[in-house]
Amino acid sequence: MPLLGTSAPVAVQNLPITGKSEANHETRHTNGVDRPLPYQSQHDDGLAVLSLRNLLFDICNQNGGGHGGSAVGHAAMFLYALNHLVGFDAWTMDELKAYGSAKLNGFTTLSHAHPEIEVPGIEVTTGPLGQGVANSVGLAIASKNLAARFNRPGYDIVQSRIYCITGDGCLMEGVALESIALAGHLQLDNLVLIYDNNQVTCDGPLDWINTEDVNGKMRACGWAAMEVLEGSHDVNAIVEALQSAQTVRGRPTFINVRTVIGVGTSNAGTSKAHHGTFAEEDVARSKVAAGLDPSVTHSIPDKALSYFRERKSHGQKLNLEWDALLSNYTAAYPKLSAQLLQRRYGGPGKAVFSLLDSIDTTAMGKLSTRESNGEIMEKVWPVCEALCGGGADLVNSNKIYYSEADAFLPSYPAGRYVRYGIREHAMASISNGIAAYGKGTFIPITATFLMFYLYAAPGVRMGALSHLQALHFATHDSFAEGQNGPTHQPVEVDSLYRAMPNLIYFRPCDAEEVVAAWKLGLSSTSRPTMISLGRDPVGPVPGTDRNLALKGAYVLRENSDAAVTLASCGTSLHRVVAAANELEKAGLHVRVVSCPSLDLLEEQKGTYKASIFPADGKPIVSVEEYVATTWARYVTASISMTTYGYSASSASNYARFGMDAESIVRKVRGYLAELGGTNARLAGWKQL
Amino acid sequence: MPLLGTSAPVAVQNLPITGKSEANHETRHTNGVDRPLPYQSQHDDGLAVLSLRNLLFDICNQNGGGHGGSAVGHAAMFLYALNHLVGFDAWTMDELKAYGSAKLNGFTTLSHAHPEIEVPGIEVTTGPLGQGVANSVGLAIASKNLAARFNRPGYDIVQSRIYCITGDGCLMEGVALESIALAGHLQLDNLVLIYDNNQVTCDGPLDWINTEDVNGKMRACGWAAMEVLEGSHDVNAIVEALQSAQTVRGRPTFINVRTVIGVGTSNAGTSKAHHGTFAEEDVARSKVAAGLDPSVTHSIPDKALSYFRERKSHGQKLNLEWDALLSNYTAAYPKLSAQLLQRRYGGPGKAVFSLLDSIDTTAMGKLSTRESNGEIMEKVWPVCEALCGGGADLVNSNKIYYSEADAFLPSYPAGRYVRYGIREHAMASISNGIAAYGKGTFIPITATFLMFYLYAAPGVRMGALSHLQALHFATHDSFAEGQNGPTHQPVEVDSLYRAMPNLIYFRPCDAEEVVAAWKLGLSSTSRPTMISLGRDPVGPVPGTDRNLALKGAYVLRENSDAAVTLASCGTSLHRVVAAANELEKAGLHVRVVSCPSLDLLEEQKGTYKASIFPADGKPIVSVEEYVATTWARYVTASISMTTYGYSASSASNYARFGMDAESIVRKVRGYLAELGGTNARLAGWKQL
Repeated sequence: MPLLGTSAPVAVQNLPITGKSEANHETRHTNGVDRPLPYQSQHDDGLAVLSLRNLLFDICNQNGGGHGGSAVGHAAMFLYALNHLVGFDAWTMDELKAYGSAKLNGFTTLSHAHPEIEVPGIEVTTGPLGQGVANSVGLAIASKNLAARFNRPGYDIVQSRIYCITGDGCLMEGVALESIALAGHLQLDNLVLIYDNNQVTCDGPLDWINTEDVNGKMRACGWAAMEVLEGSHDVNAIVEALQSAQTVRGRPTFINVRTVIGVGTSNAGTSKAHHGTFAEEDVARSKVAAGLDPSVTHSIPDKALSYFRERKSHGQKLNLEWDALLSNYTAAYPKLSAQLLQRRYGGPGKAVFSLLDSIDTTAMGKLSTRESNGEIMEKVWPVCEALCGGGADLVNSNKIYYSEADAFLPSYPAGRYVRYGIREHAMASISNGIAAYGKGTFIPITATFLMFYLYAAPGVRMGALSHLQALHFATHDSFAEGQNGPTHQPVEVDSLYRAMPNLIYFRPCDAEEVVAAWKLGLSSTSRPTMISLGRDPVGPVPGTDRNLALKGAYVLRENSDAAVTLASCGTSLHRVVAAANELEKAGLHVRVVSCPSLDLLEEQKGTYKASIFPADGKPIVSVEEYVATTWARYVTASISMTTYGYSASSASNYARFGMDAESIVRKVRGYLAELGGTNARLAGWKQL
Repeated sequence: MPLLGTSAPVAVQNLPITGKSEANHETRHTNGVDRPLPYQSQHDDGLAVLSLRNLLFDICNQNGGGHGGSAVGHAAMFLYALNHLVGFDAWTMDELKAYGSAKLNGFTTLSHAHPEIEVPGIEVTTGPLGQGVANSVGLAIASKNLAARFNRPGYDIVQSRIYCITGDGCLMEGVALESIALAGHLQLDNLVLIYDNNQVTCDGPLDWINTEDVNGKMRACGWAAMEVLEGSHDVNAIVEALQSAQTVRGRPTFINVRTVIGVGTSNAGTSKAHHGTFAEEDVARSKVAAGLDPSVTHSIPDKALSYFRERKSHGQKLNLEWDALLSNYTAAYPKLSAQLLQRRYGGPGKAVFSLLDSIDTTAMGKLSTRESNGEIMEKVWPVCEALCGGGADLVNSNKIYYSEADAFLPSYPAGRYVRYGIREHAMASISNGIAAYGKGTFIPITATFLMFYLYAAPGVRMGALSHLQALHFATHDSFAEGQNGPTHQPVEVDSLYRAMPNLIYFRPCDAEEVVAAWKLGLSSTSRPTMISLGRDPVGPVPGTDRNLALKGAYVLRENSDAAVTLASCGTSLHRVVAAANELEKAGLHVRVVSCPSLDLLEEQKGTYKASIFPADGKPIVSVEEYVATTWARYVTASISMTTYGYSASSASNYARFGMDAESIVRKVRGYLAELGGTNARLAGWKQL
């Protein structure tokens, strides 16, 4: 099975828990397993495979904009071509032809250079190397968990096996290595990782950059490792390996398939086959071998097409069987079936929002936000069974409480709490796989320090890009974390997440606003929410409101005579309130705005925004222990960090960096004196 | 050798290439190798080790702010205590006592919770897990390279062996796994990784999260793996392993030392020993065993202190020997010696800056900035021998040209071009180790797509925090990269790097400004520079200036009658110039500002900033294909992205997202009409 230029994985999930009108996903991996192979002998390409190859050549070589129609999308072309061949209605030949085209303004296509989850027949968005391996681990965890929770004897309503095709590049990436270690540890025997081992990367031969014993490494990580020594032609060997993988228990399977990139062309075995077009004579030879006119492109012989299209009816049959199984299951286990369908189609459910509305935060008055978050999570967890996930070995610090009996273990896959280990990047990317298994069916959670969400950032981004729900609990979210010092104290990480499209960064100041964060996170079904939490006890802020907080910003203390508005969030807001009290005592009137989410504020109407931050030219000062890039859109001045933090106690750091109440009072007074009553907007934004 | 709560690495570099007045670093690893051990029998703690342990207990248990004096700094306490014991002048007992103290405002100390490079006796800043492993790989590469370039028969002027102490946590992190794979591939036999295998992490027993065969994994990665089965007491076995490691050739060495965390205390072997204080009776017992009064803290018996302090005179002797060697080497190889000392103390040298000043960019007119950057690098590389590094398997796309003969290989360690493989995170973090080997001696370079600097971000940040010079070449820096689509098109990554303290993000628009980027990067000896480069040919911009660009922003087109200022950088600036031309044709006067670096602009005087962005209330519009968080400090409106990109050709994407010249003209006209001649600042910042 020649794979051209594959070096990112495509996670393939079969037997979706509900039927689909498109060809069943299962078509992808049973090819050859339950019917005659399209091959006569070991080294004779069969018509079907030859046709697939010719189609790939044609997609590759067609004229187009951008990358000149070359294979930039790793295994994307392969996936798209198969989607067409097996009869996904949406995947017309015209869609394939759009791959590599200029895609002018307004032109849309399914054939993105890298697979994107919004498209029929695509399970996860891939592209950045290593993400697909992590996604597949997430899909495997989700499938194991759902099966353990819902299957009953005779009713294997959930029975997915996850296949991921990977290349040399992915297997070098840390996120893949972390995910592989965790998959082995969790004994995910429903996962098969197929390594298209072509020994070539973009820059040259693999042995320029990697000479490890990959099979030995996988085995050391608890995987079964198999080899296919002639993967360019010996489809039987690949099929045997796939069949063998189905019998492995207690370990995920790694199939190391030796292939030749660009096999049969003059670029074979070289990095030239990674990008660019193939020589006309190579393509012509391949077409002639399939009985085609070399000058004709994008043409599949009827015999080959019917070979592939049989998979559609096969898939439809499987879907019907599954529908019947579900029907019987519903009769036998009506409650379970209702639960499953609720998770699949119903979202988190009304009960959890009622619960959130009913939470009395008075008793959480003195807690830090990480602690109140932990207490709220303890209440929500049993009510919202879609929640699934955990932390990266800091949950005692993150205050993510869980029952040991609820840990996801090889011996107890029904557990919803995943111990990710010290693997932040994999945690975020695996979460994407869990969420993608069934949108709404799972709502992944992750937890670590905000600083270490920089390790996880590529995974978090992929979730945002893929419209996948998740709750990311980012604790110890400033130098108020105390002694760890600048290596653990984010001053710029918020700038990344506040700029990241389709992710809401929410920084509550007290338990009341933490409730808002949960309402937000659970109702945001098409985007992740990052909840930024403080380490130190802070107490409640008078006037906070779990509903108003969902506007992103709201007025805590109104005063039409105010000389200045102070806006803040998180731990800093407590210093602002103290500073405002001092200023009021001295006769200076102050408005105070709580602004837990600039992202949410941005979504409000102009009139609302103007009611919070009036355009009357009075000074508006933001106060936050981060670099202030994101505030300048709304405020006239910022009290903020411009450097890294320091290894010292929380209180000491606020004083050290001029961000305690006393310093805020001093800086605000200085700013007002400098303005001397002039319009603050005219002066432009100031760093105080 | 009981190590308490170690789970981040401390890279230890011995035999610095120049002498130091402090005790020689070599003291750290020859303990016991060339003199009698402080042990009588295998299970009897010797006085010296007992004294070290007591000191650690005392540091751990003293009252303090923040973390209650607990061991938050991984191996930091161990390193600090040894620095004191072996006689680093700066490391007084009072410094040790400051560890875990409240560190009130204005109070400074060497005893940060995590080691920080600015402190005497600390080679690299550690803390975030896995970084130290990568640092040590960088130190080992640097040492091999420098030795290969400068050592001559009889003159082993460079002869470092790098020791790194790591724990369970680091070994799970992707950045460590990437680094380990590369170290094995590069056969770094001057590197020893000591694994404090205590089988416990913050949250509980290691087997909750990791059950891999770590020795097998290391061997599969090309390492020699050794085991010390009783590392809590059997110092002889550790010494033997260290001695054995010195004989290994062609492979780095991994010493797996089984230890008991908190050994000898009631918290032994549990995660409780990770944080918090130890029971008084445990500490008392240990003190009595050393002949000490249990009520006395921070006291070292004279006999133990003299045992450790002998290392200081030993180190001083080694330094004198090295000084003599250098003196003889200078006589025998005056040119080489001068080169070495120039790199060590002289910075990049005048020649390279003269070269940069002399580059004629006319011939580079039609190139993309990635291409002109590549051409400039080709000129600079031979002149600036401190440059060392490479890319993450995309250098053909990055246009980082290098000679294959210059690759850093096991068989040719004198090569300066490092093939990092598809390991972006490790690349950045290894670079920190290379830079830390000798500030100025090496100027690391890295290269990948800007999008994948999100993978590398934690390493880039550690370099910025550690004041380490580096040049990061971030190509394909927007949706102008073309077809790859949103997974490869950064719209928010700049927000991270523009907010990151002590890193300059520089986005040149043409070859002239790329020259400025090089001048900046090579002269910024205490901070990294990220050079953001475009994929597509853009041509020169009239009026760009390699010297003015170093101010961060400068006026390309002045006009006192201008109705609007347009500010931009990178690829977008070309659209702005085209739009300005259109507007001028229609009789609307436009100022144009090139703004390659908001970070540099921030460093200019207020008067300069006001000359670029006047406070006259006339509209100032930024145009950039990123989310505009960072611009609002300076401008009154922004034409920018608010979503992810799209898989389409560059030209198509500018039109699609309303950022081509035509759209800019339309949006600017609309904005001016809306303002109707009113003061633009009064209206507040607008997203156009």
